[in-house]
Amino acid sequence: MQPYHSNVMASAKNPASIHLPIRRAVIENVRPEIDGGRFPIKRTPGEKVEVTADIFADGHDLLSARLLYRVQDQPDWSIAPMREVVNDSWVGEFRISRQERHIYTIQAWPDAFKSWVRDLKKRQDAKQDLSLEFLAGAELVAQAAARSSSTENAAALREFARQFRELHKDDPDTAFAIASSEELALEMARCPDLAAATIYERELAVEVDRERARHGAWYEMFPRSCTNDPTRHGTFQSCIERLDYISEMGFDILYLPPIHPIGEVERKGKNNSTERLPEDAGSPWAIGSSLGGHKSIHPQLGTLDEFKKLLAEARRRGIEVALDLAFQCAPDHPYVREHPEWFRIRPDGSVQYAENPPKKYQDIYPLNFESEHTEALCEELKSIALYWVRQGIRIFRVDNPHTKPFAFWEWLIAEVRGECPDVIFLAEAFTRPKVMYRLAKAGFTQSYTYFAWRNTKWDLTEYFRELAQTEVREFFRPNLWPNTPDILTEYLQYGGRSAFVIRLCLAATLGANYGIYGPAFELFENRALHSGSEEYLDSEKYQIRAWDIRRPDSLKDLVAKINAIRKDNIALQSDATIRFHEVDNDQIIAFSKASDDRSNSIVVVVNLDPHHRQSGWIELPLDYFHLDMHQEYQMHDLVTEARYLWHGSRNYVELDPQRMPAHIFRLRRRVRSEQDFDYFL
Amino acid sequence: MQPYHSNVMASAKNPASIHLPIRRAVIENVRPEIDGGRFPIKRTPGEKVEVTADIFADGHDLLSARLLYRVQDQPDWSIAPMREVVNDSWVGEFRISRQERHIYTIQAWPDAFKSWVRDLKKRQDAKQDLSLEFLAGAELVAQAAARSSSTENAAALREFARQFRELHKDDPDTAFAIASSEELALEMARCPDLAAATIYERELAVEVDRERARHGAWYEMFPRSCTNDPTRHGTFQSCIERLDYISEMGFDILYLPPIHPIGEVERKGKNNSTERLPEDAGSPWAIGSSLGGHKSIHPQLGTLDEFKKLLAEARRRGIEVALDLAFQCAPDHPYVREHPEWFRIRPDGSVQYAENPPKKYQDIYPLNFESEHTEALCEELKSIALYWVRQGIRIFRVDNPHTKPFAFWEWLIAEVRGECPDVIFLAEAFTRPKVMYRLAKAGFTQSYTYFAWRNTKWDLTEYFRELAQTEVREFFRPNLWPNTPDILTEYLQYGGRSAFVIRLCLAATLGANYGIYGPAFELFENRALHSGSEEYLDSEKYQIRAWDIRRPDSLKDLVAKINAIRKDNIALQSDATIRFHEVDNDQIIAFSKASDDRSNSIVVVVNLDPHHRQSGWIELPLDYFHLDMHQEYQMHDLVTEARYLWHGSRNYVELDPQRMPAHIFRLRRRVRSEQDFDYFL
Repeated sequence: MQPYHSNVMASAKNPASIHLPIRRAVIENVRPEIDGGRFPIKRTPGEKVEVTADIFADGHDLLSARLLYRVQDQPDWSIAPMREVVNDSWVGEFRISRQERHIYTIQAWPDAFKSWVRDLKKRQDAKQDLSLEFLAGAELVAQAAARSSSTENAAALREFARQFRELHKDDPDTAFAIASSEELALEMARCPDLAAATIYERELAVEVDRERARHGAWYEMFPRSCTNDPTRHGTFQSCIERLDYISEMGFDILYLPPIHPIGEVERKGKNNSTERLPEDAGSPWAIGSSLGGHKSIHPQLGTLDEFKKLLAEARRRGIEVALDLAFQCAPDHPYVREHPEWFRIRPDGSVQYAENPPKKYQDIYPLNFESEHTEALCEELKSIALYWVRQGIRIFRVDNPHTKPFAFWEWLIAEVRGECPDVIFLAEAFTRPKVMYRLAKAGFTQSYTYFAWRNTKWDLTEYFRELAQTEVREFFRPNLWPNTPDILTEYLQYGGRSAFVIRLCLAATLGANYGIYGPAFELFENRALHSGSEEYLDSEKYQIRAWDIRRPDSLKDLVAKINAIRKDNIALQSDATIRFHEVDNDQIIAFSKASDDRSNSIVVVVNLDPHHRQSGWIELPLDYFHLDMHQEYQMHDLVTEARYLWHGSRNYVELDPQRMPAHIFRLRRRVRSEQDFDYFL
Repeated sequence: MQPYHSNVMASAKNPASIHLPIRRAVIENVRPEIDGGRFPIKRTPGEKVEVTADIFADGHDLLSARLLYRVQDQPDWSIAPMREVVNDSWVGEFRISRQERHIYTIQAWPDAFKSWVRDLKKRQDAKQDLSLEFLAGAELVAQAAARSSSTENAAALREFARQFRELHKDDPDTAFAIASSEELALEMARCPDLAAATIYERELAVEVDRERARHGAWYEMFPRSCTNDPTRHGTFQSCIERLDYISEMGFDILYLPPIHPIGEVERKGKNNSTERLPEDAGSPWAIGSSLGGHKSIHPQLGTLDEFKKLLAEARRRGIEVALDLAFQCAPDHPYVREHPEWFRIRPDGSVQYAENPPKKYQDIYPLNFESEHTEALCEELKSIALYWVRQGIRIFRVDNPHTKPFAFWEWLIAEVRGECPDVIFLAEAFTRPKVMYRLAKAGFTQSYTYFAWRNTKWDLTEYFRELAQTEVREFFRPNLWPNTPDILTEYLQYGGRSAFVIRLCLAATLGANYGIYGPAFELFENRALHSGSEEYLDSEKYQIRAWDIRRPDSLKDLVAKINAIRKDNIALQSDATIRFHEVDNDQIIAFSKASDDRSNSIVVVVNLDPHHRQSGWIELPLDYFHLDMHQEYQMHDLVTEARYLWHGSRNYVELDPQRMPAHIFRLRRRVRSEQDFDYFL
């Protein structure tokens, strides 16, 4: 069969002739490197990129290696040293300073000078005659002087070479001292011999996002439910009135479900009923009606100017507004009339509605990415995102991205970020792991996770080890949600108020990015549509709800406290350092995050059992936290302000879910002051 | 700093515009793929290539995927199906039929027809009206007919489409039966819609060697020690006289240390003494003298014609002769005079001898691959290999390849195999693992291993899992040597005769390729130069030795038996299927090799303790060996011809090293014959 005639060259071809100079150093197994360099890793300014590689050469020479890195559009490389760790494995790192795409690669070469110094020491130890060796060294140093671009460096090297020649026979001790001196090593390192250096065959990219991509607390809220009156439709103005409440809780991002006109045709009633009443508000995700589509605003919410006022008022409180990108249409969306070619047509001429057989979603028409009209469709979808960017939106939560092609997202996200690099895309894909990871590789800044369904210590530990301690961490930024309008887990349904506290503490500390869907969450709304369902009863997706946000049992003060702790502790603003710690009780999970120098170290201990008091012994790695085996240290509970003195690696914890099921400890080391009393820093 | 201005495009670039059609299927994590496709995997004709990949797309469509493979220089692809195993992971395989480099890649696409059939069944189960669905199906089938290149296929499909249209309203049951029929599925599979199929972005290579690369028994022998008289220098003629002995032991390859003139200058005496006597023979690895260099023959061995006679006589007995490629020179090698530019010169004008400070090897001059004369040097070295290829040599054992650049070997091996694809290169590199693996990637057909120093069950198991069950197996072919002229391990020095038997059994069964250095091995020569040394006392490297090969305690008959077992059992002719099996005694190791269909299954059980009887219970995976839990099976010891009846997965073994420390079992399943008695096959 002849299905496909290749005109691609085979990847592994025989070299035609020996290439000179022979580049003896080999650089392989470079990490991070996503899919052979096909995708970038992700960072924010201030974060470091630690690069490891296997580097070696034939023979016994010592090697030198360094990281080369630069902003993509700048020609000049910066340099960071690499050092051998063990067994031909090398490491180096650089820090991202600007919010621009960076490139990195590795350079390595056999270092004749370093090898000469090493061998010289061995010969000296064996009491061999070194006179010829000093002449060989003089030659190496003189060659370095000749290639140096600095006259001062060259002069210094020429002087060293002269000394070797002068002393080589008569004063080997002085010559040896010079050869092994720091001064000579430094001058030599200024002009390495790179003529036969190896450059790694790929240049690897770092996509750099703004800091908000790395950490933020999200609050999801239905604008139409902001009035405290289920019969009165909320507006952007009522959202503005609720901003102080949200701001007091310390949220960074206010995420609104779609704000566009809601379809009238096939509109669903309350609790997703196919029989709707005239007053039913419909699902905001059934986008488009005679009143407009994805670039329009649902009139009951207000005008574009009022929307912009909401953005401004939010911004004044340090809050960004995130919008929903839900690329699908209600039957009466203008696209259906104006661009029927963007949809699939059934054999009877009707437009194909969404299906997951045998389920039918007649109120939703999916877009068709497999027609000859796809290019125009893609351009239109891009124009939707850019329209809202121009209104001031910098964060999109993308609805069901896994039902549109990966190549479409890779293109769209690159296009939008090409115009505005600040834009953040959060992928709402709850599907198979490889699909979720591929969306992240394709460009999504952040991703929803399986967190909502990971409730046991084993499940949480396994999952977060995968997310934070494997290559996944390089491209997939988790955003943890204990609930969403689609997800009311069994754990929350049956665990009572403590369950909400437990899940809040876990989400806000395991995840530098996390969010809650409120006010349902802080008011621990836990009524499901029916037993076995994760849908809310009287879900806001289909109706306006009134929430008594001033209820005295609200979790809002705890939320505020925890968000404040997140802001005060940089350890919680990154997921790079998550470590799990042993506790001899499967109901208690313990983990930590710490700043690079451990000056900010947070240890979180959570009782996962919402019903019973649990206790156990926790084991902390003292070395890692720079703690002394013989010195006590203070565990400062940032929620309750209680302070415990701990000693050694093994300490007792006890947590009563009826009071507080979690400790969020700041670990404080003892400092002996001049005033002769101790305190903890 | 501006050390290096890149003109390489960044690997991960934003796409400029959306490419149409959008190729929805994603193919990633393709295995085997060595270093992003930089190096080929290795196979021999008859071996299969099993390829796995993660394959998925957006949405809910079912996918189809297939392997494309071809001989590199042929344009047309062959096709092998792939199937999903679990969780978006797919597998397929093809078999290598010719000794030519092959290329493979993967093609995948959303399969609208398969998805339609799946959905149709769900709709049917939900008792939905299917009439429109049959029309949609008719359209899919008609489109397939239109793109089919076979008129017969197209006609069949048009008929199916007609039936769907005819039956869609009035006879949904018949239409459904047709839709889910095997006939329709087969016709549809003949003309898949590949317009938007994804081809994996890399084409991957398979280097195909001749069968001898996969399995062979090597015998290393010093030709000069073939006379039974330590004062008489052996010749090619004495080698010929020893061929029957080697042939009776069943060896496939006779490997000779260098046969070239041996340097006179700085020649070493017996036991590597720097004081030589006039009659000392010198080391064959100190190559070159006034009598010639790498293309010459040491006159005391004979002439080129006599050498060719040896090759012919060996060939007549099914034995190939392997030569040593040792690219280094004695001080009086002609190159030193004729091409001083190929060596390093010391500051006093003398040629740099080999060193590993503080050790000096004044009898060896290494070649310099870092000068402006390197190209001429490389061409000369290539001409050495090709010279011996033209004399009939097809196997080279390469001395210390890790002291010459990887790029040199990659070039040399490709060049030589370009002229003669049958040539096998065995890398004698005992160095760090990454260096050894890189040499294998660079082109060495086979490699020496750490086998000699892996003596405990844990060490052997870990090591052979790494070699046979990780990606290493794809490019690194182990060749196991219990001893070499450089390696007399402690285990052999102190373990007595049993130690030799144990190591022989392990080498010959763990390794499809193995070798011994004899007659030292079969005569269990175990005298070391001194305690703590792995050098032989009175090593043949520096002197002629006489061996009494007719000693009654020789292991030659056991060697012959084991080599015969290797020839009779294809399971032992490959390393792909090594599996280790539990034994509840750390002194007993058990492992198996089996043919694809398990019709040839070999189970090896070895007592690693050369001094004491050991016993234990071995656990075999019955399913894997296609054994019935309730049926006994026969373990036929191919060495002793003893036959044991085993039952179930757990059975008792006991091995006395004074008698025989190993079982090499052929596992025989019971067959009930028509004559009413049982036998085992």
